[in-house]
Amino acid sequence: MGFKIFLLVLFLALSSAFPVKRRQYTPCKHLVLYFRDVIYNGENAANATSALVAAPQGANLTKLADQFHFGDIAVFDDPITLDNNFHSKPVGRAQGFYIYDTKNTFTAWLGFTSVLNSTDHQGTILPSLEPIPF
Amino acid sequence: MGFKIFLLVLFLALSSAFPVKRRQYTPCKHLVLYFRDVIYNGENAANATSALVAAPQGANLTKLADQFHFGDIAVFDDPITLDNNFHSKPVGRAQGFYIYDTKNTFTAWLGFTSVLNSTDHQGTILPSLEPIPF
Amino acid sequence: MGFKIFLLVLFLALSSAFPVKRRQYTPCKHLVLYFRDVIYNGENAANATSALVAAPQGANLTKLADQFHFGDIAVFDDPITLDNNFHSKPVGRAQGFYIYDTKNTFTAWLGFTSVLNSTDHQGTILPSLEPIPF
Repeated sequence: MGFKIFLLVLFLALSSAFPVKRRQYTPCKHLVLYFRDVIYNGENAANATSALVAAPQGANLTKLADQFHFGDIAVFDDPITLDNNFHSKPVGRAQGFYIYDTKNTFTAWLGFTSVLNSTDHQGTILPSLEPIPF
Repeated sequence: MGFKIFLLVLFLALSSAFPVKRRQYTPCKHLVLYFRDVIYNGENAANATSALVAAPQGANLTKLADQFHFGDIAVFDDPITLDNNFHSKPVGRAQGFYIYDTKNTFTAWLGFTSVLNSTDHQGTILPSLEPIPF
Repeated sequence: MGFKIFLLVLFLALSSAFPVKRRQYTPCKHLVLYFRDVIYNGENAANATSALVAAPQGANLTKLADQFHFGDIAVFDDPITLDNNFHSKPVGRAQGFYIYDTKNTFTAWLGFTSVLNSTDHQGTILPSLEPIPF
Protein backbone atom coordinates (compact mmCIF):
# COMPACT_ATOMS: atom_id res chain seq x y z
CA MET A 1 0.00 0.00 0.00
CA GLY A 2 1.44 3.35 -1.00
CA PHE A 3 0.52 6.79 0.18
CA LYS A 4 1.45 10.25 -0.99
CA ILE A 5 1.39 13.26 1.27
CA PHE A 6 0.98 16.74 -0.15
CA LEU A 7 1.92 19.48 2.21
CA LEU A 8 1.49 23.13 1.60
CA VAL A 9 3.75 25.08 3.88
CA LEU A 10 2.72 28.69 3.96
CA PHE A 11 5.33 31.29 3.25
CA LEU A 12 4.84 34.13 5.66
CA ALA A 13 6.14 37.40 4.28
CA LEU A 14 7.92 39.41 6.90
CA SER A 15 7.89 43.15 6.56
CA SER A 16 9.71 45.72 8.62
CA ALA A 17 9.86 49.49 8.86
CA PHE A 18 13.60 49.25 9.47
CA PRO A 19 14.93 47.07 6.69
CA VAL A 20 18.20 45.36 7.47
CA LYS A 21 20.23 42.94 5.45
CA ARG A 22 18.88 39.47 6.06
CA ARG A 23 20.41 36.09 5.39
CA GLN A 24 18.89 34.73 2.20
CA TYR A 25 16.99 31.53 2.59
CA THR A 26 14.80 29.32 0.48
CA PRO A 27 11.29 29.05 1.86
CA CYS A 28 9.81 25.57 1.74
CA LYS A 29 6.43 26.05 0.11
CA HIS A 30 5.66 22.53 -0.99
CA LEU A 31 6.76 19.20 0.30
CA VAL A 32 5.72 15.96 -1.37
CA LEU A 33 6.49 12.81 0.52
CA TYR A 34 5.89 9.17 -0.28
CA PHE A 35 5.69 6.24 2.02
CA ARG A 36 5.08 2.64 1.23
CA ASP A 37 4.07 -0.28 3.31
CA VAL A 38 5.16 -3.92 3.20
CA ILE A 39 2.74 -5.84 5.37
CA TYR A 40 3.92 -8.89 7.29
CA ASN A 41 2.52 -12.07 5.74
CA GLY A 42 4.15 -14.67 7.99
CA GLU A 43 7.24 -15.13 5.80
CA ASN A 44 8.71 -11.70 5.14
CA ALA A 45 9.87 -10.69 8.62
CA ALA A 46 13.11 -9.21 7.27
CA ASN A 47 11.42 -6.86 4.78
CA ALA A 48 8.05 -6.14 6.37
CA THR A 49 7.49 -2.57 7.53
CA SER A 50 4.06 -3.17 9.04
CA ALA A 51 2.14 -5.88 10.83
CA LEU A 52 -1.49 -6.73 11.40
CA VAL A 53 -2.12 -6.60 15.14
CA ALA A 54 -5.88 -6.88 15.32
CA ALA A 55 -8.45 -8.57 13.12
CA PRO A 56 -12.12 -9.44 13.42
CA GLN A 57 -13.47 -12.84 14.48
CA GLY A 58 -12.52 -15.49 11.91
CA ALA A 59 -9.60 -13.58 10.41
CA ASN A 60 -5.91 -13.88 11.33
CA LEU A 61 -2.80 -11.73 11.59
CA THR A 62 -0.94 -12.88 8.49
CA LYS A 63 -3.62 -12.32 5.85
CA LEU A 64 -5.83 -9.28 5.31
CA ALA A 65 -9.46 -10.05 6.16
CA ASP A 66 -12.27 -10.59 3.66
CA GLN A 67 -14.94 -7.96 3.03
CA PHE A 68 -12.52 -5.14 2.14
CA HIS A 69 -10.31 -6.02 5.14
CA PHE A 70 -12.97 -4.50 7.44
CA GLY A 71 -11.75 -4.52 11.02
CA ASP A 72 -8.05 -5.09 10.39
CA ILE A 73 -5.67 -2.84 12.33
CA ALA A 74 -2.06 -2.56 11.19
CA VAL A 75 0.85 -0.83 12.89
CA PHE A 76 3.55 0.52 10.58
CA ASP A 77 7.05 1.96 10.62
CA ASP A 78 7.55 2.91 6.96
CA PRO A 79 10.43 4.65 5.21
CA ILE A 80 9.55 8.04 3.69
CA THR A 81 11.02 8.84 0.30
CA LEU A 82 11.00 11.93 -1.88
CA ASP A 83 9.92 10.07 -5.01
CA ASN A 84 7.57 7.17 -5.64
CA ASN A 85 10.27 4.53 -5.32
CA PHE A 86 10.37 2.27 -2.31
CA HIS A 87 14.11 1.79 -2.74
CA SER A 88 15.11 5.47 -2.77
CA LYS A 89 17.15 6.71 0.14
CA PRO A 90 14.66 7.36 2.96
CA VAL A 91 14.44 10.89 4.38
CA GLY A 92 12.46 9.83 7.43
CA ARG A 93 9.93 7.44 8.87
CA ALA A 94 6.13 7.42 8.94
CA GLN A 95 5.05 5.67 12.12
CA GLY A 96 1.56 4.91 13.38
CA PHE A 97 -1.40 2.74 12.60
CA TYR A 98 -4.23 2.34 10.14
CA ILE A 99 -7.65 0.81 10.40
CA TYR A 100 -9.79 -0.60 7.60
CA ASP A 101 -13.15 0.87 8.55
CA THR A 102 -15.32 0.49 5.46
CA LYS A 103 -17.37 -2.54 4.52
CA ASN A 104 -18.00 -1.79 0.87
CA THR A 105 -14.79 -0.29 -0.51
CA PHE A 106 -11.09 0.00 0.28
CA THR A 107 -10.41 2.88 2.64
CA ALA A 108 -8.13 3.18 5.60
CA TRP A 109 -8.18 5.57 8.54
CA LEU A 110 -4.62 6.56 9.41
CA GLY A 111 -3.15 8.01 12.56
CA PHE A 112 0.59 8.54 12.32
CA THR A 113 3.56 10.82 12.61
CA SER A 114 6.09 11.58 9.90
CA VAL A 115 9.53 12.20 11.36
CA LEU A 116 12.03 13.63 8.86
CA ASN A 117 15.74 13.24 9.43
CA SER A 118 17.31 14.41 6.19
CA THR A 119 19.76 17.31 6.17
CA ASP A 120 17.15 19.67 4.74
CA HIS A 121 14.34 18.84 7.12
CA GLN A 122 16.15 17.66 10.24
CA GLY A 123 13.78 16.92 13.07
CA THR A 124 10.57 17.94 11.33
CA ILE A 125 7.56 16.15 12.78
CA LEU A 126 4.28 16.09 10.92
CA PRO A 127 1.27 14.54 12.60
CA SER A 128 -1.55 13.20 10.43
CA LEU A 129 -4.94 11.80 11.23
CA GLU A 130 -7.23 11.16 8.31
CA PRO A 131 -9.12 8.73 6.15
CA ILE A 132 -7.33 7.91 2.89
CA PRO A 133 -8.95 6.11 -0.03
CA PHE A 134 -6.67 3.98 -2.19
CA MET B 1 -24.86 1.75 21.15
CA GLY B 2 -26.22 5.02 19.85
CA PHE B 3 -24.51 8.35 19.50
CA LYS B 4 -25.77 11.79 18.73
CA ILE B 5 -23.58 14.46 17.20
CA PHE B 6 -24.39 18.12 17.70
CA LEU B 7 -22.61 20.38 15.30
CA LEU B 8 -22.68 24.10 15.39
CA VAL B 9 -21.70 25.44 12.02
CA LEU B 10 -20.84 29.08 12.29
CA PHE B 11 -22.55 31.47 9.96
CA LEU B 12 -19.97 33.91 8.73
CA ALA B 13 -21.54 37.19 7.73
CA LEU B 14 -20.00 38.50 4.56
CA SER B 15 -19.88 42.23 4.13
CA SER B 16 -18.73 44.20 1.16
CA ALA B 17 -18.21 47.83 0.25
CA PHE B 18 -19.53 47.06 -3.23
CA PRO B 19 -22.80 45.21 -2.71
CA VAL B 20 -23.87 43.07 -5.64
CA LYS B 21 -26.87 40.83 -6.08
CA ARG B 22 -26.00 37.47 -4.57
CA ARG B 23 -27.67 34.12 -4.95
CA GLN B 24 -29.85 33.53 -1.90
CA TYR B 25 -28.89 30.55 0.17
CA THR B 26 -29.83 28.98 3.46
CA PRO B 27 -26.92 28.90 5.85
CA CYS B 28 -26.56 25.64 7.76
CA LYS B 29 -26.27 26.68 11.37
CA HIS B 30 -27.08 23.45 13.15
CA LEU B 31 -26.71 19.85 12.11
CA VAL B 32 -27.87 17.01 14.33
CA LEU B 33 -26.83 13.57 13.24
CA TYR B 34 -27.46 10.15 14.73
CA PHE B 35 -25.55 6.97 14.24
CA ARG B 36 -26.15 3.60 15.73
CA ASP B 37 -24.05 0.54 16.05
CA VAL B 38 -24.90 -3.15 15.76
CA ILE B 39 -21.94 -5.06 17.08
CA TYR B 40 -21.07 -8.45 15.63
CA ASN B 41 -21.90 -11.22 18.08
CA GLY B 42 -20.95 -14.24 16.01
CA GLU B 43 -24.39 -14.76 14.47
CA ASN B 44 -25.51 -11.45 12.99
CA ALA B 45 -23.02 -11.05 10.15
CA ALA B 46 -25.70 -9.73 7.79
CA ASN B 47 -26.86 -6.90 10.06
CA ALA B 48 -23.76 -6.06 12.07
CA THR B 49 -22.24 -2.65 11.41
CA SER B 50 -19.24 -3.06 13.73
CA ALA B 51 -16.92 -5.76 14.95
CA LEU B 52 -14.67 -6.28 17.93
CA VAL B 53 -11.12 -6.60 16.63
CA ALA B 54 -9.10 -6.50 19.83
CA ALA B 55 -9.82 -7.58 23.37
CA PRO B 56 -7.78 -8.09 26.53
CA GLN B 57 -6.44 -11.43 27.72
CA GLY B 58 -9.29 -13.81 28.59
CA ALA B 59 -11.91 -12.03 26.48
CA ASN B 60 -12.98 -12.83 22.93
CA LEU B 61 -14.17 -11.09 19.77
CA THR B 62 -17.84 -12.01 19.86
CA LYS B 63 -18.76 -10.82 23.36
CA LEU B 64 -17.92 -7.51 25.04
CA ALA B 65 -15.43 -7.99 27.87
CA ASP B 66 -16.22 -7.90 31.57
CA GLN B 67 -15.27 -4.92 33.72
CA PHE B 68 -17.07 -2.27 31.64
CA HIS B 69 -15.62 -3.78 28.45
CA PHE B 70 -12.22 -2.29 29.35
CA GLY B 71 -9.73 -2.96 26.59
CA ASP B 72 -12.16 -3.82 23.81
CA ILE B 73 -11.53 -2.14 20.46
CA ALA B 74 -14.29 -2.09 17.86
CA VAL B 75 -14.17 -0.92 14.25
CA PHE B 76 -17.43 0.43 12.84
CA ASP B 77 -19.06 1.47 9.58
CA ASP B 78 -22.42 2.84 10.77
CA PRO B 79 -25.27 4.48 8.86
CA ILE B 80 -25.91 8.13 9.82
CA THR B 81 -29.53 9.21 10.09
CA LEU B 82 -31.20 12.56 10.67
CA ASP B 83 -33.48 11.25 13.43
CA ASN B 84 -33.04 8.74 16.21
CA ASN B 85 -34.26 5.80 14.14
CA PHE B 86 -31.87 3.14 12.94
CA HIS B 87 -34.13 2.34 10.01
CA SER B 88 -34.41 5.86 8.59
CA LYS B 89 -32.83 6.49 5.22
CA PRO B 90 -29.12 7.01 5.90
CA VAL B 91 -27.56 10.31 4.82
CA GLY B 92 -24.00 9.08 5.22
CA ARG B 93 -21.64 6.78 7.06
CA ALA B 94 -19.69 7.17 10.31
CA GLN B 95 -16.51 5.13 9.98
CA GLY B 96 -13.75 4.60 12.48
CA PHE B 97 -13.09 2.89 15.77
CA TYR B 98 -13.82 3.13 19.46
CA ILE B 99 -12.00 1.94 22.52
CA TYR B 100 -13.43 1.15 25.94
CA ASP B 101 -10.84 2.84 28.12
CA THR B 102 -12.44 3.11 31.57
CA LYS B 103 -12.43 0.48 34.27
CA ASN B 104 -15.22 1.80 36.47
CA THR B 105 -17.91 3.10 34.12
CA PHE B 106 -19.05 2.88 30.51
CA THR B 107 -17.17 5.32 28.34
CA ALA B 108 -15.74 4.98 24.87
CA TRP B 109 -13.01 6.93 23.12
CA LEU B 110 -13.97 7.41 19.46
CA GLY B 111 -11.90 8.25 16.43
CA PHE B 112 -13.94 8.39 13.25
CA THR B 113 -15.02 10.29 10.19
CA SER B 114 -18.58 11.16 9.22
CA VAL B 115 -19.02 11.19 5.46
CA LEU B 116 -22.31 12.68 4.28
CA ASN B 117 -23.71 11.83 0.87
CA SER B 118 -27.20 13.27 0.92
CA THR B 119 -28.26 15.86 -1.63
CA ASP B 120 -28.05 18.66 0.92
CA HIS B 121 -24.65 17.83 2.32
CA GLN B 122 -22.94 16.05 -0.55
CA GLY B 123 -19.35 15.19 0.23
CA THR B 124 -19.19 16.78 3.67
CA ILE B 125 -16.55 15.14 5.82
CA LEU B 126 -16.52 15.68 9.58
CA PRO B 127 -13.64 14.22 11.57
CA SER B 128 -14.20 13.50 15.27
CA LEU B 129 -11.90 12.38 18.04
CA GLU B 130 -13.33 12.38 21.50
CA PRO B 131 -14.40 10.49 24.57
CA ILE B 132 -18.16 9.92 24.73
CA PRO B 133 -20.01 8.75 27.86
CA PHE B 134 -23.16 6.70 27.31
CA MET C 1 5.93 3.25 31.99
CA GLY C 2 5.68 6.83 33.25
CA PHE C 3 4.77 9.97 31.40
CA LYS C 4 4.91 13.61 32.30
CA ILE C 5 2.69 16.21 30.73
CA PHE C 6 3.74 19.83 30.62
CA LEU C 7 0.94 22.20 29.92
CA LEU C 8 1.29 25.87 29.34
CA VAL C 9 -1.99 27.58 29.89
CA LEU C 10 -1.90 31.06 28.49
CA PHE C 11 -2.91 33.93 30.70
CA LEU C 12 -4.98 36.31 28.66
CA ALA C 13 -4.78 39.84 29.99
CA LEU C 14 -8.12 41.54 29.88
CA SER C 15 -8.18 45.29 29.50
CA SER C 16 -11.14 47.59 29.64
CA ALA C 17 -11.80 51.28 29.16
CA PHE C 18 -14.22 51.15 32.07
CA PRO C 19 -12.33 49.54 34.93
CA VAL C 20 -14.49 47.96 37.58
CA LYS C 21 -13.58 46.02 40.66
CA ARG C 22 -13.05 42.41 39.70
CA ARG C 23 -12.90 39.29 41.83
CA GLN C 24 -9.25 38.40 42.34
CA TYR C 25 -8.24 35.04 41.00
CA THR C 26 -5.07 33.06 40.46
CA PRO C 27 -4.48 32.35 36.80
CA CYS C 28 -3.26 28.83 36.09
CA LYS C 29 -0.20 29.32 33.91
CA HIS C 30 1.51 25.97 34.27
CA LEU C 31 0.21 22.56 35.04
CA VAL C 32 2.51 19.56 35.41
CA LEU C 33 0.86 16.19 35.57
CA TYR C 34 2.25 12.69 35.94
CA PHE C 35 0.69 9.43 35.05
CA ARG C 36 2.06 5.96 35.38
CA ASP C 37 1.09 2.68 33.90
CA VAL C 38 1.03 -0.81 35.39
CA ILE C 39 0.55 -3.20 32.50
CA TYR C 40 -1.36 -6.42 33.00
CA ASN C 41 1.01 -9.40 32.96
CA GLY C 42 -1.45 -12.21 33.64
CA GLU C 43 -1.06 -12.13 37.40
CA ASN C 44 -1.60 -8.55 38.57
CA ALA C 45 -5.27 -8.04 37.74
CA ALA C 46 -5.89 -6.16 41.01
CA ASN C 47 -3.16 -3.55 40.44
CA ALA C 48 -2.92 -3.31 36.65
CA THR C 49 -4.02 -0.03 35.10
CA SER C 50 -3.54 -1.06 31.49
CA ALA C 51 -3.84 -4.14 29.33
CA LEU C 52 -2.42 -5.29 26.03
CA VAL C 53 -5.34 -5.80 23.66
CA ALA C 54 -3.57 -6.36 20.35
CA ALA C 55 -0.22 -7.84 19.44
CA PRO C 56 1.46 -8.95 16.23
CA GLN C 57 1.59 -12.56 15.03
CA GLY C 58 3.59 -14.70 17.44
CA ALA C 59 3.20 -12.39 20.43
CA ASN C 60 0.61 -12.60 23.20
CA LEU C 61 -1.40 -10.32 25.48
CA THR C 62 0.47 -10.86 28.75
CA LYS C 63 4.01 -10.06 27.63
CA LEU C 64 5.26 -7.12 25.58
CA ALA C 65 6.43 -8.23 22.12
CA ASP C 66 10.02 -8.57 20.99
CA GLN C 67 11.60 -6.02 18.65
CA PHE C 68 10.86 -2.95 20.78
CA HIS C 69 7.29 -4.16 21.35
CA PHE C 70 6.48 -3.18 17.74
CA GLY C 71 2.80 -3.72 17.07
CA ASP C 72 1.56 -3.93 20.63
CA ILE C 73 -1.54 -1.89 21.44
CA ALA C 74 -2.40 -1.20 25.07
CA VAL C 75 -5.51 0.43 26.53
CA PHE C 76 -5.00 2.29 29.80
CA ASP C 77 -6.94 3.94 32.63
CA ASP C 78 -4.15 5.48 34.70
CA PRO C 79 -4.27 7.65 37.81
CA ILE C 80 -2.88 11.19 37.33
CA THR C 81 -0.76 12.60 40.15
CA LEU C 82 0.78 16.01 40.75
CA ASP C 83 4.22 14.61 41.58
CA ASN C 84 6.25 11.71 40.25
CA ASN C 85 4.90 9.22 42.77
CA PHE C 86 2.50 6.51 41.72
CA HIS C 87 1.05 6.35 45.23
CA SER C 88 0.20 10.05 45.59
CA LYS C 89 -3.47 10.93 45.79
CA PRO C 90 -4.72 10.96 42.18
CA VAL C 91 -6.21 14.19 40.83
CA GLY C 92 -7.75 12.54 37.77
CA ARG C 93 -7.48 9.77 35.23
CA ALA C 94 -5.63 9.51 31.91
CA GLN C 95 -7.63 7.21 29.67
CA GLY C 96 -6.89 6.05 26.15
CA PHE C 97 -4.51 3.85 24.25
CA TYR C 98 -0.94 3.66 23.05
CA ILE C 99 0.71 1.90 20.18
CA TYR C 100 4.32 0.81 19.90
CA ASP C 101 5.03 1.91 16.34
CA THR C 102 8.82 1.90 16.01
CA LYS C 103 10.98 -1.06 15.10
CA ASN C 104 14.35 0.25 16.24
CA THR C 105 13.76 2.13 19.47
CA PHE C 106 11.19 2.52 22.24
CA THR C 107 8.53 5.01 21.28
CA ALA C 108 4.81 4.98 21.77
CA TRP C 109 2.05 6.86 19.97
CA LEU C 110 -0.58 7.91 22.49
CA GLY C 111 -4.19 8.93 22.05
CA PHE C 112 -5.91 9.71 25.32
CA THR C 113 -7.88 12.11 27.44
CA SER C 114 -6.88 13.47 30.84
CA VAL C 115 -9.89 14.06 33.04
CA LEU C 116 -9.17 16.02 36.22
CA ASN C 117 -11.48 15.80 39.20
CA SER C 118 -9.59 17.57 41.97
CA THR C 119 -11.10 20.59 43.70
CA ASP C 120 -8.82 22.96 41.82
CA HIS C 121 -9.38 21.59 38.35
CA GLN C 122 -12.81 20.03 38.56
CA GLY C 123 -14.00 18.72 35.23
CA THR C 124 -11.01 19.80 33.16
CA ILE C 125 -10.58 17.60 30.10
CA LEU C 126 -7.32 17.62 28.16
CA PRO C 127 -7.14 15.63 24.95
CA SER C 128 -3.72 14.48 23.74
CA LEU C 129 -2.55 12.78 20.61
CA GLU C 130 1.19 12.48 20.15
CA PRO C 131 4.22 10.30 19.91
CA ILE C 132 6.22 10.12 23.14
CA PRO C 133 9.73 8.71 23.40
CA PHE C 134 10.65 7.11 26.72
